[in-house]
Amino acid sequence: MSTSPYWSALTASLTPYVPGEQPRIDGLVKLNTNENPFPPSPKVHEAIAAAVGGLARYPDPNSTDFCQAVADYVGLPLDHVFAGNGSDEVLAVVFQALLKHEQPTLMPDITYSFYPVYCRLFDIAYRALPLKDDFSIDLNDYLVPNGGVIFANPNAPTGCPLPLADIEAFLQKQTDSVVVVDEAYVDFGGESASSLVSRYPNLLVIQTLSKSRSLAGLRVGFALGQPPLIDALQRVKNSFNSYPVDHLAIAGATAAIHDVDYFEQTRQAIIATRTRLDDALKARGFEVLPSATNFIFARHPKHDGKALAAGLRAEKVLVRRFDAPRIDQFLRISIGSEADTDILLQALDKVMAA
Amino acid sequence: MSTSPYWSALTASLTPYVPGEQPRIDGLVKLNTNENPFPPSPKVHEAIAAAVGGLARYPDPNSTDFCQAVADYVGLPLDHVFAGNGSDEVLAVVFQALLKHEQPTLMPDITYSFYPVYCRLFDIAYRALPLKDDFSIDLNDYLVPNGGVIFANPNAPTGCPLPLADIEAFLQKQTDSVVVVDEAYVDFGGESASSLVSRYPNLLVIQTLSKSRSLAGLRVGFALGQPPLIDALQRVKNSFNSYPVDHLAIAGATAAIHDVDYFEQTRQAIIATRTRLDDALKARGFEVLPSATNFIFARHPKHDGKALAAGLRAEKVLVRRFDAPRIDQFLRISIGSEADTDILLQALDKVMAA
Repeated sequence: MSTSPYWSALTASLTPYVPGEQPRIDGLVKLNTNENPFPPSPKVHEAIAAAVGGLARYPDPNSTDFCQAVADYVGLPLDHVFAGNGSDEVLAVVFQALLKHEQPTLMPDITYSFYPVYCRLFDIAYRALPLKDDFSIDLNDYLVPNGGVIFANPNAPTGCPLPLADIEAFLQKQTDSVVVVDEAYVDFGGESASSLVSRYPNLLVIQTLSKSRSLAGLRVGFALGQPPLIDALQRVKNSFNSYPVDHLAIAGATAAIHDVDYFEQTRQAIIATRTRLDDALKARGFEVLPSATNFIFARHPKHDGKALAAGLRAEKVLVRRFDAPRIDQFLRISIGSEADTDILLQALDKVMAA
Repeated sequence: MSTSPYWSALTASLTPYVPGEQPRIDGLVKLNTNENPFPPSPKVHEAIAAAVGGLARYPDPNSTDFCQAVADYVGLPLDHVFAGNGSDEVLAVVFQALLKHEQPTLMPDITYSFYPVYCRLFDIAYRALPLKDDFSIDLNDYLVPNGGVIFANPNAPTGCPLPLADIEAFLQKQTDSVVVVDEAYVDFGGESASSLVSRYPNLLVIQTLSKSRSLAGLRVGFALGQPPLIDALQRVKNSFNSYPVDHLAIAGATAAIHDVDYFEQTRQAIIATRTRLDDALKARGFEVLPSATNFIFARHPKHDGKALAAGLRAEKVLVRRFDAPRIDQFLRISIGSEADTDILLQALDKVMAA
């Protein structure tokens, strides 16, 4: 790594997050970044077309229309909702506003790998607690002094869900610091903690429109929490970027939340394809973790994970693998269309037979 | 201010930036946030309509098409360009990546009031150096030990430009730390320092599409600098948000940069309206600072600034006023359409006659 005398010490100290690649390869079956195989609701296109005329003006700094749609959808008041430029930005704000304390923030050792990146960027102490041998989270491990707790539910990249009852039992004991539940994948089979927000003042729930609403390209995420938590997020946001969500994103995201029928239809289709892929992988000898997400996390006892991923790539099927302890033999395979799944399974058979 | 035990100490310490209001009032003539009275290029609408089909996928994390368009436009290589979610986000990244040092960052006492907000958010030492009595920046004042220098050129909210020769003379002496020139308004009559980037490794130039490209609602800004500076910005950006510019914003912003004819035509029209407004205000006894921007900064020797702003608001004309030392008597009036200018002048005559 080359540095420069002009860099801040912070810049030199960083280990940036590496997102899944977005290659431009014709005919690629892209199952590496958990995008939705369905297009967004047609209502999203209509809303964006109608909003284009307003681009010369600054957007609503608080994304009020979108927050109201979310509030109505989850059954909370408007002042319980915060919007950001993708849930990645919402998370960045949350780390600064609510997880930077003297005690360390607790997180699983295997989870969304951006969390420790935020900690380094914002100089936040953290401790990574090991998942159990079955890759589940045991929240009893988190009942130790802390400056906050964050985990993904369902967890990523494992896909494993935690029952809502476990989260509520934890919230009853863990009252001194903020508990952040990152629900990026919850719509594919998890139980949302949004129903607990009105009863637990230290609970913050984060969701995204990138996965279940087919809007990865629009960059909209949100947080649900009681007003003192939302106020904290607003204070940091307004010290960073007054207008983080653009005018078209507000319009499109609002329409996506409103179109409940399309949402239900597409997420059920993805869950059905997941069941099919789960069965097909198990039939080929894979160990498949129980998934409540739009991806599957699986390893094969006789085929090396790195070799499988490389073989699939040669067949123009892109999946994701993490070069990390305990999970380096796993493939994380996004749920694509039925046709994508056909191609994936054919490619897998070819690679495993080679 | 109510705080919460869940807030970080940082959150409680913040004094967030307050953007100009975006009220929803029918018939309002909105001259408070320096938006462009012209819609974006028709090519922007076409590009967005064509891009809508790709929203289910994550956007290009590096906004390559947009950065290439900017690179071609300013005559620099692609690796000299960094894109962000509005120049506000670009500035936030710059403060962390290049202006956080042991020595304080230097800035004018009267300039874009977001700069000290970033410093507080990211714990950056800074010193504000007074403008001269004529509200100009004298860069000789900045030849003192520092961790970086940032100023807007033309400056805001004064509108006053600094000659490029002054900036180059300063860069020849100030080589040890980064010099950031924020050119949000440069297209309305300033001289861009982008022509100096290839010769000065510590120069970073920031521009936005919010003003001269009529795209405040789309949130796209960029930085120009040599690769070590751009690399620093990428490192911080990739520790914060992998995909800060959404798919539609990349498409629309790229089209806006490509449509040079429309850009030239609309910015010349705004400059002509500015000349008209400048003359009309001087004819009414206002002191008007020399503006190279799409706004005018003016005060009247006999009319209180706060009263004028309130009177105009009652007439449904919104201008901006800053409750800050030295400038609290000034109105900052965005250049609107010719029709907006008619209404503004009529309202002003009414308020001043009252």
